[in-house]
Amino acid sequence: MEIRATYNEVCGKLAEITTLDEITGLLQWDQEVVMPRGAAPSRGRQCATLAVLRHQRATDARLGEQLEALHGHPELSQVEAANVREALRDWRREARMPADLVRRWGEAKVQAHEVWVDARAADDFALFAPALVELVELAKARAAAIDPDAPAYDVFIDAFEPGMTTARLTPLFDRLKDFLVPFIARVRADGMDQPCAWTHTPIPVADQTEVARHFITALGYSFDHGRVDTAVHPFCGGAGVTDVRITTRYKEDGFLGSMLAAIHEAGHALYEQGRDASLADQPVSRARSMGIHESQSILWEQQIARSRPFWQHWLPWLRGRYSHLADVSLDGFLFGINRVDFNNLIRVDADELTYPLHVTMRYEIERELLNGSLEVADVPDVWNAAMQRYLGVTPPSQADGALQDIHWSMGAFGYFPSYTLGALYAAQIHASLSRDLPDLDSQIAAGETEALRAWLRDKIHLKGSILETDLLCASATGAPLDPEPFIQYTTRKYSALYGL
Amino acid sequence: MEIRATYNEVCGKLAEITTLDEITGLLQWDQEVVMPRGAAPSRGRQCATLAVLRHQRATDARLGEQLEALHGHPELSQVEAANVREALRDWRREARMPADLVRRWGEAKVQAHEVWVDARAADDFALFAPALVELVELAKARAAAIDPDAPAYDVFIDAFEPGMTTARLTPLFDRLKDFLVPFIARVRADGMDQPCAWTHTPIPVADQTEVARHFITALGYSFDHGRVDTAVHPFCGGAGVTDVRITTRYKEDGFLGSMLAAIHEAGHALYEQGRDASLADQPVSRARSMGIHESQSILWEQQIARSRPFWQHWLPWLRGRYSHLADVSLDGFLFGINRVDFNNLIRVDADELTYPLHVTMRYEIERELLNGSLEVADVPDVWNAAMQRYLGVTPPSQADGALQDIHWSMGAFGYFPSYTLGALYAAQIHASLSRDLPDLDSQIAAGETEALRAWLRDKIHLKGSILETDLLCASATGAPLDPEPFIQYTTRKYSALYGL
Repeated sequence: MEIRATYNEVCGKLAEITTLDEITGLLQWDQEVVMPRGAAPSRGRQCATLAVLRHQRATDARLGEQLEALHGHPELSQVEAANVREALRDWRREARMPADLVRRWGEAKVQAHEVWVDARAADDFALFAPALVELVELAKARAAAIDPDAPAYDVFIDAFEPGMTTARLTPLFDRLKDFLVPFIARVRADGMDQPCAWTHTPIPVADQTEVARHFITALGYSFDHGRVDTAVHPFCGGAGVTDVRITTRYKEDGFLGSMLAAIHEAGHALYEQGRDASLADQPVSRARSMGIHESQSILWEQQIARSRPFWQHWLPWLRGRYSHLADVSLDGFLFGINRVDFNNLIRVDADELTYPLHVTMRYEIERELLNGSLEVADVPDVWNAAMQRYLGVTPPSQADGALQDIHWSMGAFGYFPSYTLGALYAAQIHASLSRDLPDLDSQIAAGETEALRAWLRDKIHLKGSILETDLLCASATGAPLDPEPFIQYTTRKYSALYGL
Repeated sequence: MEIRATYNEVCGKLAEITTLDEITGLLQWDQEVVMPRGAAPSRGRQCATLAVLRHQRATDARLGEQLEALHGHPELSQVEAANVREALRDWRREARMPADLVRRWGEAKVQAHEVWVDARAADDFALFAPALVELVELAKARAAAIDPDAPAYDVFIDAFEPGMTTARLTPLFDRLKDFLVPFIARVRADGMDQPCAWTHTPIPVADQTEVARHFITALGYSFDHGRVDTAVHPFCGGAGVTDVRITTRYKEDGFLGSMLAAIHEAGHALYEQGRDASLADQPVSRARSMGIHESQSILWEQQIARSRPFWQHWLPWLRGRYSHLADVSLDGFLFGINRVDFNNLIRVDADELTYPLHVTMRYEIERELLNGSLEVADVPDVWNAAMQRYLGVTPPSQADGALQDIHWSMGAFGYFPSYTLGALYAAQIHASLSRDLPDLDSQIAAGETEALRAWLRDKIHLKGSILETDLLCASATGAPLDPEPFIQYTTRKYSALYGL
């Protein structure tokens, strides 16, 4: 009885924190999409006020005591126990952080971001290096405050991928390298290229916007619980499960990228819209991890919207919209939408074959930075050597090299692995649902996505954070995280594409 | 020294409350303009959470003690003293309200609003009456909690017009009645009407939108600190002095009304954008009262955008946009934009001559309801009798009669007078600035609004709430609130218009 009352009281406190997060999400969406320029300073004050209110609640000592008392209590249901587990994890990560470190970290990030922008413009990593040194030192201190016994980098990874460790990631990335480096070299050397000038034909933004909305709708995105806008950076945000907003952007001479970016964000949005609304204000309903989140966007973007069945159905429709595709065959279209740009230096522009190698080298650099075996000053050389070793290219500038990503300037160490975990989970999930839905390809080729969506909703979205990641993966796919489905999928796809 | 520290601490607390209000403002704007329909329930939860947080801070006992200690302290500057005065006024109004009454009032308003919607649809005041009876009783209890010595209605008026009382308002409204009722009768009987079919010529919404943005820009509205959107209800809102957003709406066959509504909201927005940014997070920077706010929208809408000089400049431009105006003369246009619709029953559609009478009768009904001399059940009869007496028409239905306004269903007793106070202040301010800027008409006729805007900014906007309303009015116009400038202005304008 007392436990029940405590649990209910805790849920009220957690709901308040969730609500503050939703409000913050709305303010951020507004800032990216509709806010007038001159409102930036006051928006900063508004977000800071919410952050203080949230921090007070999230580190409340009484909440911590109540969560500790509830943790593992036999009277709680599975969902309730998971809710307490997630909330206690949040509480420990936040409450264990000394206020002084919170402040110094916040200041150092603002400072580092400004310096990074300048260093990138000046193409000079040395300008950024001192700020990065300070962030690395503070990051170690933060990690030690949360868990003094774990490697610092593990503590950061854990923020995005609960339970994931370098001990598991390193062999995964090594396996990917062992497969991808020689496979990409083979594709480059033996593959047949095709002319794809049509991929750069300029398309008016208004037409692209209509096409993007068409596909977002076809995927099953609910406009009753979200909206689609244009912003500089595509993202999925908003204010909770009933208000999931996505943004997209359009390049006149890159209609494929714009279309796929919209589909990618819609994949994220379907995860958020598919969460359990009855638990929406509790941590247990949250998306499980960044990697699982990325798996949902990648699955729709790669396994579905870059697949033959999908374009069997939609290419005739798209030709009706974009007359320059009249002479592009299905095979030609599939080649154009999947081809590898072997000279690409930029992670965000990478295809699904080279992307994991961009991530691998960042993973290796971050790991060495945080365990102390790599000096910040040596990052550019290590970066360029890895690019040459993994991808056969060397960046001609630091702006296109070690200064290209925003992540380190924001202190977001440990985030990169989630991109590739997402690709692995996506392939594994796709293999599993192809077993469960034997006619999936025919359905996609008929323009039907309902069964696919229902499967994802049932196996992933509704589960939220009830199951820890390994259990969620096993319950959805019958196996723990495994790189082999990704390797099989890419081998099959790119062998066919390049006629190997 | 100690007072200084206390004052600074208080300012921090007040800034937090202001910031919460800004965030709430953004959530409300979002809800009206861009929020997906299905997000309504979660938006309700978000607003309620902010309201609770705000209430806790606004009624904090220590804040009250500090404000009492600061109140009237000789070491405070004029601005600081005014800030304390405003904050203490807020604190008293909110902290003196028993929690039980807050809850019952909130519930009764939600209930009454639903009932009002139904009663209006059914055209049956009797359906609404019990809910209104309850609201009136609760309103009396609220007023008594705030100030047991003042008439209940005065306490409600004071929420929108600090310092205003029925003792001052009744003679004002009587003076207006004494002038307007016979004057309108004379206009109706002796005035010359003109055909105005062109006012209903359909104009595509896209064209009207461009025209509205043109005028909003010409008035000096800053798009760097605001934005203009379409919404069901035109309003001015947003998230503080650097983020002042207005909405407008367009009727295809009513381009004049749409244009003037946009200008009206821009007038409100200029007030908000013109506030003292260095004090933006303190109560002292706030717009002085609803009546002063309305004066700023009315001045731009009526004294400027319905004036001959304004259209001397802009009518040729508008003819270039709206070809159906080619044959409409300046005199004809001015008649069409100012003419009185003697059969109009609806306050929000009323012209500036009949509008004050719509307000007067509501003022009289509210006053009698709250002082107990009028029963709710008698409202429809009193309403219709007043309509006949003041405006010479009797509503054929209750939906167009005593059920037409949303205000009572929201418990917003005491709000109506602000509309007419705004019209009086606008005329008085316009008379004063016409003395200070002798060539104002020539400037307006040259399309120049800068000197006018600078005058308003200096005399009204920047002043915020530093001066109490009477002092603000006297410092801007040289005299306390006076209905005569309005009477002179309307006499002059409508005599010319109708050839009396």
